[in-house]
Amino acid sequence: ARPRVGYIFTGKTINSLVAQRINKIKVKDVCSFPFVLDEQVSIYDAIVSMFMEDVGTLFITKNGYLEGVVSRKDLLKATMGGMDVSKVPVMVVMTKMPNVVTINPDDPILLAAQKLVSREIDALPVVEVKTLANGEEKLRVTGRITKTTITKLFVELGETR
Amino acid sequence: ARPRVGYIFTGKTINSLVAQRINKIKVKDVCSFPFVLDEQVSIYDAIVSMFMEDVGTLFITKNGYLEGVVSRKDLLKATMGGMDVSKVPVMVVMTKMPNVVTINPDDPILLAAQKLVSREIDALPVVEVKTLANGEEKLRVTGRITKTTITKLFVELGETR
Repeated sequence: ARPRVGYIFTGKTINSLVAQRINKIKVKDVCSFPFVLDEQVSIYDAIVSMFMEDVGTLFITKNGYLEGVVSRKDLLKATMGGMDVSKVPVMVVMTKMPNVVTINPDDPILLAAQKLVSREIDALPVVEVKTLANGEEKLRVTGRITKTTITKLFVELGETR
Repeated sequence: ARPRVGYIFTGKTINSLVAQRINKIKVKDVCSFPFVLDEQVSIYDAIVSMFMEDVGTLFITKNGYLEGVVSRKDLLKATMGGMDVSKVPVMVVMTKMPNVVTINPDDPILLAAQKLVSREIDALPVVEVKTLANGEEKLRVTGRITKTTITKLFVELGETR
Protein backbone atom coordinates (compact mmCIF):
# COMPACT_ATOMS: atom_id res chain seq x y z
CA ALA A 1 0.00 0.00 0.00
CA ARG A 2 1.15 3.52 -0.78
CA PRO A 3 2.12 5.57 2.29
CA ARG A 4 -0.40 8.35 2.87
CA VAL A 5 2.13 10.94 4.03
CA GLY A 6 5.76 11.64 3.18
CA TYR A 7 7.55 10.58 0.06
CA ILE A 8 5.38 9.25 -2.73
CA PHE A 9 7.04 7.24 -5.47
CA THR A 10 5.25 8.13 -8.57
CA GLY A 11 7.32 7.78 -11.68
CA LYS A 12 4.64 10.26 -12.61
CA THR A 13 3.95 13.96 -12.61
CA ILE A 14 1.66 15.67 -10.12
CA ASN A 15 -0.81 16.12 -12.97
CA SER A 16 -1.07 12.39 -13.49
CA LEU A 17 -1.63 11.86 -9.75
CA VAL A 18 -4.53 14.29 -10.03
CA ALA A 19 -5.90 12.30 -12.97
CA GLN A 20 -5.46 9.06 -11.01
CA ARG A 21 -7.45 10.48 -8.07
CA ILE A 22 -10.25 11.69 -10.35
CA ASN A 23 -10.41 8.32 -12.16
CA LYS A 24 -11.18 6.52 -8.89
CA ILE A 25 -14.50 8.31 -8.38
CA LYS A 26 -17.60 6.50 -9.63
CA VAL A 27 -20.98 7.84 -10.70
CA LYS A 28 -22.71 6.11 -7.76
CA ASP A 29 -20.37 7.90 -5.29
CA VAL A 30 -21.64 11.37 -6.20
CA CYS A 31 -24.97 11.12 -8.06
CA SER A 32 -28.03 12.83 -6.65
CA PHE A 33 -31.68 11.86 -6.40
CA PRO A 34 -33.51 11.86 -9.76
CA PHE A 35 -36.71 13.77 -10.32
CA VAL A 36 -38.99 12.02 -12.84
CA LEU A 37 -42.33 12.85 -14.47
CA ASP A 38 -44.73 10.71 -16.51
CA GLU A 39 -44.76 11.45 -20.27
CA GLN A 40 -48.49 12.30 -20.17
CA VAL A 41 -47.94 15.31 -17.89
CA SER A 42 -48.64 18.64 -19.65
CA ILE A 43 -45.81 20.98 -20.68
CA TYR A 44 -47.28 23.52 -18.24
CA ASP A 45 -47.07 21.09 -15.32
CA ALA A 46 -43.53 20.12 -16.37
CA ILE A 47 -42.50 23.80 -16.21
CA VAL A 48 -44.12 24.18 -12.77
CA SER A 49 -42.28 21.03 -11.56
CA MET A 50 -39.02 22.37 -12.92
CA PHE A 51 -39.43 25.56 -10.86
CA MET A 52 -40.67 23.72 -7.75
CA GLU A 53 -37.77 21.26 -7.78
CA ASP A 54 -35.34 23.89 -9.08
CA VAL A 55 -33.81 21.55 -11.65
CA GLY A 56 -32.75 22.35 -15.23
CA THR A 57 -33.61 18.96 -16.72
CA LEU A 58 -36.51 16.55 -16.09
CA PHE A 59 -36.39 12.82 -16.77
CA ILE A 60 -39.58 11.53 -18.37
CA THR A 61 -40.89 8.01 -17.80
CA LYS A 62 -43.63 5.69 -19.07
CA ASN A 63 -44.73 2.90 -16.69
CA GLY A 64 -41.74 3.89 -14.57
CA TYR A 65 -39.12 3.38 -17.29
CA LEU A 66 -37.06 6.09 -18.99
CA GLU A 67 -38.68 7.41 -22.17
CA GLY A 68 -37.09 10.84 -22.58
CA VAL A 69 -35.47 13.95 -21.18
CA VAL A 70 -36.71 17.54 -21.28
CA SER A 71 -34.57 20.63 -20.65
CA ARG A 72 -35.34 24.26 -19.81
CA LYS A 73 -34.35 25.02 -23.39
CA ASP A 74 -36.98 22.58 -24.78
CA LEU A 75 -39.65 24.12 -22.55
CA LEU A 76 -38.65 27.69 -23.44
CA LYS A 77 -38.92 26.76 -27.14
CA ALA A 78 -42.38 25.25 -26.49
CA THR A 79 -43.69 28.39 -24.75
CA MET A 80 -42.33 30.55 -27.58
CA GLY A 81 -43.85 28.33 -30.27
CA GLY A 82 -47.43 29.29 -29.41
CA MET A 83 -48.46 25.79 -28.25
CA ASP A 84 -51.26 25.39 -25.72
CA VAL A 85 -48.82 24.28 -23.04
CA SER A 86 -51.58 23.30 -20.61
CA LYS A 87 -52.94 20.71 -23.09
CA VAL A 88 -49.88 19.36 -24.93
CA PRO A 89 -48.12 16.51 -23.07
CA VAL A 90 -44.42 16.89 -22.32
CA MET A 91 -43.62 13.84 -24.50
CA VAL A 92 -44.21 16.01 -27.59
CA VAL A 93 -41.21 18.23 -26.86
CA MET A 94 -38.85 15.83 -25.07
CA THR A 95 -35.74 14.15 -26.49
CA LYS A 96 -36.85 10.53 -26.87
CA MET A 97 -35.15 7.17 -26.33
CA PRO A 98 -32.88 5.89 -27.83
CA ASN A 99 -31.44 9.41 -28.28
CA VAL A 100 -31.17 10.05 -24.54
CA VAL A 101 -27.57 10.02 -23.28
CA THR A 102 -27.35 7.94 -20.07
CA ILE A 103 -24.72 6.72 -17.61
CA ASN A 104 -24.42 3.66 -15.34
CA PRO A 105 -23.84 3.76 -11.56
CA ASP A 106 -20.52 1.87 -11.87
CA ASP A 107 -19.10 4.09 -14.63
CA PRO A 108 -16.30 6.51 -13.69
CA ILE A 109 -17.54 10.05 -13.03
CA LEU A 110 -14.98 11.19 -15.62
CA LEU A 111 -17.01 9.42 -18.33
CA ALA A 112 -20.13 11.26 -17.15
CA ALA A 113 -18.29 14.60 -17.31
CA GLN A 114 -16.98 13.75 -20.80
CA LYS A 115 -20.53 12.96 -21.98
CA LEU A 116 -21.90 16.22 -20.52
CA VAL A 117 -19.23 18.19 -22.41
CA SER A 118 -19.16 16.32 -25.73
CA ARG A 119 -22.95 15.94 -26.04
CA GLU A 120 -23.55 19.52 -24.85
CA ILE A 121 -26.15 18.59 -22.25
CA ASP A 122 -26.70 19.70 -18.64
CA ALA A 123 -27.79 16.42 -17.04
CA LEU A 124 -27.51 12.66 -17.41
CA PRO A 125 -29.94 10.10 -15.99
CA VAL A 126 -28.14 7.35 -14.06
CA VAL A 127 -29.80 4.13 -15.22
CA GLU A 128 -29.97 0.42 -14.52
CA VAL A 129 -31.06 -2.03 -17.22
CA LYS A 130 -34.10 -4.20 -16.44
CA THR A 131 -35.07 -7.08 -18.71
CA LEU A 132 -38.83 -7.52 -18.95
CA ALA A 133 -40.62 -10.92 -19.13
CA ASN A 134 -40.89 -10.52 -22.93
CA GLY A 135 -37.11 -10.04 -23.21
CA GLU A 136 -37.37 -6.29 -23.86
CA GLU A 137 -34.74 -4.14 -22.12
CA LYS A 138 -35.90 -1.06 -20.22
CA LEU A 139 -34.07 1.54 -18.16
CA ARG A 140 -34.87 2.42 -14.56
CA VAL A 141 -33.67 5.86 -13.46
CA THR A 142 -31.77 5.60 -10.17
CA GLY A 143 -29.96 8.95 -10.06
CA ARG A 144 -28.90 12.17 -11.70
CA ILE A 145 -25.54 13.62 -12.71
CA THR A 146 -25.43 17.28 -13.75
CA LYS A 147 -22.81 19.96 -14.33
CA THR A 148 -23.67 21.04 -10.77
CA THR A 149 -22.63 17.58 -9.51
CA ILE A 150 -19.26 17.97 -11.26
CA THR A 151 -18.81 21.56 -10.03
CA LYS A 152 -19.54 20.46 -6.42
CA LEU A 153 -17.05 17.59 -6.77
CA PHE A 154 -14.43 20.01 -8.15
CA VAL A 155 -14.97 22.28 -5.11
CA GLU A 156 -14.64 19.30 -2.76
CA LEU A 157 -11.37 18.18 -4.41
CA GLY A 158 -10.04 21.75 -4.30
CA GLU A 159 -10.96 22.36 -0.65
CA THR A 160 -9.18 19.27 0.76
CA ARG A 161 -6.33 20.18 3.16
CA ALA B 1 12.00 23.46 -8.23
CA ARG B 2 10.11 20.23 -7.64
CA PRO B 3 11.20 17.37 -9.90
CA ARG B 4 8.48 16.58 -12.43
CA VAL B 5 8.96 12.81 -12.36
CA GLY B 6 10.07 10.32 -9.71
CA TYR B 7 9.87 10.80 -5.98
CA ILE B 8 7.83 13.73 -4.75
CA PHE B 9 8.34 14.89 -1.18
CA THR B 10 5.02 15.96 0.01
CA GLY B 11 4.50 15.62 3.73
CA LYS B 12 1.01 15.52 2.34
CA THR B 13 -1.61 13.10 1.12
CA ILE B 14 -2.44 12.61 -2.55
CA ASN B 15 -5.71 14.41 -1.90
CA SER B 16 -3.92 17.53 -0.79
CA LEU B 17 -1.69 17.40 -3.88
CA VAL B 18 -4.87 17.37 -5.94
CA ALA B 19 -6.15 20.40 -4.02
CA GLN B 20 -2.80 22.15 -4.52
CA ARG B 21 -2.97 21.58 -8.29
CA ILE B 22 -6.55 22.89 -8.47
CA ASN B 23 -5.67 25.97 -6.39
CA LYS B 24 -3.04 27.04 -8.95
CA ILE B 25 -5.59 27.56 -11.72
CA LYS B 26 -6.88 31.12 -12.16
CA VAL B 27 -10.11 32.40 -13.66
CA LYS B 28 -8.24 34.06 -16.55
CA ASP B 29 -6.62 30.71 -17.48
CA VAL B 30 -9.93 29.07 -18.35
CA CYS B 31 -12.65 31.71 -18.83
CA SER B 32 -14.46 31.92 -22.13
CA PHE B 33 -15.67 34.82 -24.25
CA PRO B 34 -18.64 36.72 -22.74
CA PHE B 35 -21.82 37.33 -24.67
CA VAL B 36 -23.47 40.64 -23.67
CA LEU B 37 -26.70 42.42 -24.59
CA ASP B 38 -27.89 45.95 -23.93
CA GLU B 39 -30.57 46.31 -21.23
CA GLN B 40 -33.01 47.90 -23.71
CA VAL B 41 -33.20 44.75 -25.86
CA SER B 42 -36.63 43.04 -25.71
CA ILE B 43 -37.16 39.79 -23.80
CA TYR B 44 -38.03 38.18 -27.14
CA ASP B 45 -34.71 39.22 -28.69
CA ALA B 46 -32.87 38.06 -25.56
CA ILE B 47 -34.46 34.60 -25.94
CA VAL B 48 -33.50 34.48 -29.63
CA SER B 49 -29.91 35.48 -28.74
CA MET B 50 -29.80 32.80 -26.06
CA PHE B 51 -30.72 30.14 -28.63
CA MET B 52 -28.42 31.57 -31.33
CA GLU B 53 -25.41 31.69 -29.02
CA ASP B 54 -26.50 28.53 -27.19
CA VAL B 55 -25.79 29.98 -23.76
CA GLY B 56 -27.83 29.57 -20.57
CA THR B 57 -27.13 33.02 -19.13
CA LEU B 58 -26.82 36.45 -20.76
CA PHE B 59 -24.90 39.37 -19.29
CA ILE B 60 -26.76 42.66 -19.64
CA THR B 61 -24.99 46.00 -20.02
CA LYS B 62 -25.78 49.72 -20.12
CA ASN B 63 -23.27 51.94 -21.94
CA GLY B 64 -21.03 48.89 -22.05
CA TYR B 65 -20.94 48.33 -18.27
CA LEU B 66 -22.50 45.43 -16.40
CA GLU B 67 -26.05 46.13 -15.21
CA GLY B 68 -27.52 42.65 -14.77
CA VAL B 69 -27.72 38.99 -15.62
CA VAL B 70 -30.60 37.03 -17.11
CA SER B 71 -30.97 33.24 -17.06
CA ARG B 72 -33.08 30.75 -19.02
CA LYS B 73 -35.14 30.42 -15.86
CA ASP B 74 -35.88 34.20 -15.77
CA LEU B 75 -36.90 34.10 -19.44
CA LEU B 76 -39.07 31.00 -19.00
CA LYS B 77 -40.83 32.75 -16.10
CA ALA B 78 -41.38 35.83 -18.28
CA THR B 79 -42.94 33.82 -21.14
CA MET B 80 -45.23 32.02 -18.67
CA GLY B 81 -46.27 35.27 -16.98
CA GLY B 82 -48.24 36.51 -19.98
CA MET B 83 -45.97 39.52 -20.66
CA ASP B 84 -45.71 40.94 -24.17
CA VAL B 85 -42.15 39.67 -24.54
CA SER B 86 -41.57 41.51 -27.82
CA LYS B 87 -42.21 44.89 -26.10
CA VAL B 88 -40.85 44.50 -22.55
CA PRO B 89 -37.10 45.16 -22.26
CA VAL B 90 -34.92 42.45 -20.74
CA MET B 91 -33.94 44.78 -17.86
CA VAL B 92 -37.41 44.23 -16.34
CA VAL B 93 -36.73 40.54 -15.66
CA MET B 94 -32.96 40.52 -15.05
CA THR B 95 -31.14 40.24 -11.73
CA LYS B 96 -29.75 43.76 -11.24
CA MET B 97 -26.50 45.15 -9.86
CA PRO B 98 -25.39 45.11 -7.05
CA ASN B 99 -27.04 41.66 -6.68
CA VAL B 100 -25.07 40.14 -9.56
CA VAL B 101 -22.40 37.69 -8.39
CA THR B 102 -19.12 38.37 -10.23
CA ILE B 103 -15.53 37.13 -10.29
CA ASN B 104 -12.16 38.74 -11.13
CA PRO B 105 -9.68 37.43 -13.72
CA ASP B 106 -6.95 36.93 -11.09
CA ASP B 107 -9.18 35.04 -8.63
CA PRO B 108 -8.60 31.27 -8.26
CA ILE B 109 -11.01 29.18 -10.34
CA LEU B 110 -11.88 27.37 -7.09
CA LEU B 111 -13.49 30.58 -5.79
CA ALA B 112 -15.56 30.79 -8.99
CA ALA B 113 -16.70 27.17 -8.56
CA GLN B 114 -17.56 27.84 -4.89
CA LYS B 115 -19.68 30.87 -5.89
CA LEU B 116 -21.51 28.88 -8.60
CA VAL B 117 -22.40 26.20 -6.03
CA SER B 118 -23.21 28.36 -2.99
CA ARG B 119 -25.18 31.03 -4.91
CA GLU B 120 -26.95 28.39 -7.02
CA ILE B 121 -26.22 30.06 -10.36
CA ASP B 122 -25.05 28.70 -13.71
CA ALA B 123 -22.69 31.47 -14.82
CA LEU B 124 -20.48 34.26 -13.48
CA PRO B 125 -19.38 37.34 -15.42
CA VAL B 126 -15.62 37.89 -15.20
CA VAL B 127 -15.23 41.63 -14.53
CA GLU B 128 -12.66 44.39 -14.28
CA VAL B 129 -13.35 47.54 -12.26
CA LYS B 130 -13.20 50.85 -14.16
CA THR B 131 -13.31 54.15 -12.30
CA LEU B 132 -15.17 56.83 -14.24
CA ALA B 133 -14.17 60.54 -14.35
CA ASN B 134 -16.81 61.29 -11.66
CA GLY B 135 -15.27 58.69 -9.33
CA GLU B 136 -18.06 56.15 -9.89
CA GLU B 137 -16.94 52.52 -10.17
CA LYS B 138 -18.28 50.44 -13.05
CA LEU B 139 -17.67 46.87 -14.17
CA ARG B 140 -16.49 45.83 -17.62
CA VAL B 141 -17.29 42.23 -18.57
CA THR B 142 -14.17 40.52 -19.92
CA GLY B 143 -15.16 36.85 -19.73
CA ARG B 144 -17.54 34.15 -18.60
CA ILE B 145 -17.22 31.23 -16.16
CA THR B 146 -20.01 28.62 -16.15
CA LYS B 147 -20.58 25.13 -14.79
CA THR B 148 -19.59 24.01 -18.31
CA THR B 149 -16.18 25.71 -17.85
CA ILE B 150 -15.68 23.78 -14.59
CA THR B 151 -16.88 20.49 -16.12
CA LYS B 152 -14.45 20.92 -19.08
CA LEU B 153 -11.61 21.67 -16.66
CA PHE B 154 -12.50 18.58 -14.61
CA VAL B 155 -12.36 16.46 -17.80
CA GLU B 156 -8.99 17.98 -18.72
CA LEU B 157 -7.56 17.25 -15.25
CA GLY B 158 -8.94 13.70 -15.37
CA GLU B 159 -7.65 12.94 -18.88
CA THR B 160 -3.98 13.88 -18.19
CA ARG B 161 -1.62 10.90 -18.56
